[in-house]
Amino acid sequence: MKCKRCRRAGAAVELPSHHAAFCPDCFFVFFRRQVTEGIRKLRLLAPEDRVLVCVSGGKDSLVLWDVLIDEGYETEGLYIDLGIDGYSDRSKEKVVAYASSRGKTPIVVELAKEGIPIPEAARCVRMQECSICGTVKRYFFNRVAAEGKFTVVATGHNLDDETARLLGNLLHWQRGHLARQHPLLPGEEGGLVRKVKPLWRVSEVETAAYGFLKGIDYVNEECPMSEDATSLVYKEALSRIEDRMPGTRIVFYQGFLDPSNPLRKGPEAAAADAARGAEDDAGEGVGAPQACAACGAPTYTETCSFCRLKERVRNARSLRAARGSR
Amino acid sequence: MKCKRCRRAGAAVELPSHHAAFCPDCFFVFFRRQVTEGIRKLRLLAPEDRVLVCVSGGKDSLVLWDVLIDEGYETEGLYIDLGIDGYSDRSKEKVVAYASSRGKTPIVVELAKEGIPIPEAARCVRMQECSICGTVKRYFFNRVAAEGKFTVVATGHNLDDETARLLGNLLHWQRGHLARQHPLLPGEEGGLVRKVKPLWRVSEVETAAYGFLKGIDYVNEECPMSEDATSLVYKEALSRIEDRMPGTRIVFYQGFLDPSNPLRKGPEAAAADAARGAEDDAGEGVGAPQACAACGAPTYTETCSFCRLKERVRNARSLRAARGSR
Repeated sequence: MKCKRCRRAGAAVELPSHHAAFCPDCFFVFFRRQVTEGIRKLRLLAPEDRVLVCVSGGKDSLVLWDVLIDEGYETEGLYIDLGIDGYSDRSKEKVVAYASSRGKTPIVVELAKEGIPIPEAARCVRMQECSICGTVKRYFFNRVAAEGKFTVVATGHNLDDETARLLGNLLHWQRGHLARQHPLLPGEEGGLVRKVKPLWRVSEVETAAYGFLKGIDYVNEECPMSEDATSLVYKEALSRIEDRMPGTRIVFYQGFLDPSNPLRKGPEAAAADAARGAEDDAGEGVGAPQACAACGAPTYTETCSFCRLKERVRNARSLRAARGSR
Repeated sequence: MKCKRCRRAGAAVELPSHHAAFCPDCFFVFFRRQVTEGIRKLRLLAPEDRVLVCVSGGKDSLVLWDVLIDEGYETEGLYIDLGIDGYSDRSKEKVVAYASSRGKTPIVVELAKEGIPIPEAARCVRMQECSICGTVKRYFFNRVAAEGKFTVVATGHNLDDETARLLGNLLHWQRGHLARQHPLLPGEEGGLVRKVKPLWRVSEVETAAYGFLKGIDYVNEECPMSEDATSLVYKEALSRIEDRMPGTRIVFYQGFLDPSNPLRKGPEAAAADAARGAEDDAGEGVGAPQACAACGAPTYTETCSFCRLKERVRNARSLRAARGSR
């Protein structure tokens, strides 16, 4: 099959949802255009932004960094070493290697040194790893962004990630989560940095193809902690629908983002949130955040969820040590 | 495994979504309670209703009829013979046999006699069979209900049907359809009869088990026209999620029906519909219907969609006859 854009080279990537097939060079153009269109439509980034790109070593975040560098954004990469045996080291290697190929050195946060490596923390406080990981990551996104004077944090979530999350939120009608799910979470005075997902328009397959054809070396394995994640169930269900009806995912997500959609954050949703008064899992609340009594980080509760978590891990450790010495 | 209700007999039906397993007798109690709860919660039926049960010969509609008879409702069955070779005859046999086992004779409408058998009509007007079938069935539901002084029409849609439809409507954000999707469609002055789906709380598997254990003989084959129906794709996707997370379907549908859900018909949705002014695929519109200029049936357009369809089939036939005689 010939590339449908240049009509000369052989097609290397077939995209049923766009009724298209591209040679590598034309696919790069297409992919970058999808990303920049996604950025432009929702005003995710401005040319003067200093972008902190959160890179895990997986394809999505490295591809995101690659596109943002090529598009001329001022970027630095942040790698959070979760302290997961083997997996974390292999991931860091990929991040460091990619960064060095672009003349960069990533900012690295080591959770072991911070006293909160994910597997041990999960055991200590008997929580799901993914839940702890989310809290910890959000904390360091904000802290590193503030310390480094970054104006925005970018993550590599793609269309498959976003639609899987959307489907999960709809199946359980999680109104608060639905009201806030968006590729752009505005920052707040007081230290909550703006967060964006510039890959929201591109699928996992497209991102993987871009990474592969660009020769970006990434960790192929899924995080060993996330094997049973429910999001994979939703992703798989949507994949089966997409296979039979190409284009469903983007229609689903764009229709959701439409400002006329009553599930989007409106005055009522905001009011409902305020009435509940709870800090939700996205770490954002209503009104301006306060400074955490322990660390000064922005929070809607007296002590931030990161400090509370750390405290619980510390206590569990002391308890264990006390038991051990008896 | 023992029945979790009587704790004596062996369990014949296991229901992970209810953390339950029942012997046949206890399952009958459970199933009927699910149906009557569904009727009560949404006030689908009143004791004095005269119910026209639409029976296709499949498990869902025959089980529905069975439960409604057992619950003491005044019912008659309506069978619409779609004129599909073999399938329609086999279906009618099952309906007649079941009806006679309950001392009843079904009302039968033969579309061939009405000049609009589905397969030929679809060929003539080049429309999808399922779409034509929907229009034609809705027409006869209303007509037979009016002629027989029925106060309500009941169809056998179960939880799997309703959630598949809901998922499809959400994936494409069909606001009008979402606003009107409900197990109860109120009737309208002027001849649109109230329509209810009393099986909305029970799954396909539960309905099949009820039919099987009750010894109800039904057509097992899917309608040969619907093989590629997109609803089957949604149904399958939801089945995979339900298998991994039992109970998701009922949470999904009940959360959707919650009156606080902003997608439910509210003043804005009604206004949006009115602005569009279109008769939607459910055959219901805004305000009171008028009488069709051709047949007198209730409609929101000058001629009802059934008469327009019949006219197109007639024209296509004449054209073919004229060509044949040349």
